[in-house]
Amino acid sequence: MKYGARNQLMGTVTDIKKGSVMCEVKVKISSGAFMESVMTMNSLKELGIKKGDTVKIVVKAVNVLLVKE
Amino acid sequence: MKYGARNQLMGTVTDIKKGSVMCEVKVKISSGAFMESVMTMNSLKELGIKKGDTVKIVVKAVNVLLVKE
Amino acid sequence: MKYGARNQLMGTVTDIKKGSVMCEVKVKISSGAFMESVMTMNSLKELGIKKGDTVKIVVKAVNVLLVKE
Amino acid sequence: MKYGARNQLMGTVTDIKKGSVMCEVKVKISSGAFMESVMTMNSLKELGIKKGDTVKIVVKAVNVLLVKE
Amino acid sequence: MKYGARNQLMGTVTDIKKGSVMCEVKVKISSGAFMESVMTMNSLKELGIKKGDTVKIVVKAVNVLLVKE
Amino acid sequence: MKYGARNQLMGTVTDIKKGSVMCEVKVKISSGAFMESVMTMNSLKELGIKKGDTVKIVVKAVNVLLVKE
Repeated sequence: MKYGARNQLMGTVTDIKKGSVMCEVKVKISSGAFMESVMTMNSLKELGIKKGDTVKIVVKAVNVLLVKE
Repeated sequence: MKYGARNQLMGTVTDIKKGSVMCEVKVKISSGAFMESVMTMNSLKELGIKKGDTVKIVVKAVNVLLVKE
Repeated sequence: MKYGARNQLMGTVTDIKKGSVMCEVKVKISSGAFMESVMTMNSLKELGIKKGDTVKIVVKAVNVLLVKE
Repeated sequence: MKYGARNQLMGTVTDIKKGSVMCEVKVKISSGAFMESVMTMNSLKELGIKKGDTVKIVVKAVNVLLVKE
Repeated sequence: MKYGARNQLMGTVTDIKKGSVMCEVKVKISSGAFMESVMTMNSLKELGIKKGDTVKIVVKAVNVLLVKE
Repeated sequence: MKYGARNQLMGTVTDIKKGSVMCEVKVKISSGAFMESVMTMNSLKELGIKKGDTVKIVVKAVNVLLVKE
């Protein structure tokens, strides 16, 4: 399985906040930091993930913003 | 400084690959993993970053895809 | 503070429509036109913005679509 | 013509920077501020725009990041 | 009407799932496959679409991920 | 393999246009229509795709714009 995206990290689902159309999934990565994904409830159902599951995080580099503080 | 985005990680610039219009910036995060951002050469110039600089990575959660392998 | 994005405008928050997971924030820019951002309710809480606040609007150029009518 | 996007502004093309695959189009909006779009050279060809042309800028609200400085 | 995007498909709206802030619109394309768009309820109101309507699907190529399974 | 995205189509690579940093991949879907993906040359190398290969197209629904002409 290969993805055309420069950002690929493994993580563990730690929380899922459900709405009527959208939901927000919190994922802990190996550094201990958290990342989050927003998707539709329908996508969540198809993914079939729950707390504790291992997931791959995929982000295309064009959607990554760098900030110099 | 507060950002309306659920993904915020600190990292160190390790590589910059420059094209004529776009460029690709590689950033090492604390877990040792790498993330990348694609931006315009003009944005790179304004950011003024170079190898070794600390940057903040910001990604809106809607642009994060989860995959269950 | 420098952002790796070609679109940066200042504006004033004029309305916030809240849902359970997501919210929609309306911002008036200097031309009198309106722009809007959709984010999670959790991001809104962290941003801590309310009507009348000044915010910076940041959009990466890859996410800007041009149409010739 | 109706678009399913919360951000729609009119502007005038002021500059086009061309690469081999991608290009960067600069657009002046009515406030005098500038916005930019990155697209493929193939899209530019199909759009058929040049300096001085009027274009509509369309951005989905999910791709708009708010920052509180 | 010309769009600065490499992905343009025609389809027919087959379902709209409404939430408080966001909604999810299902569209059948000519191959019989389905595509979906998430937008705000406000955008849906402005679009004024309902089941059976013909719509154009527009996606910028930077937001298309390719996977090799 | 499950993806948290509402748009998933199979297609065949018909053309790859390479630049220094970015490239543009053209894919024919079953209806005979074409879709395109822009990614980095580094992602293309990792994907390892060439003309004639079968790929999965994945797009999050938030990045799909609907237009009513």
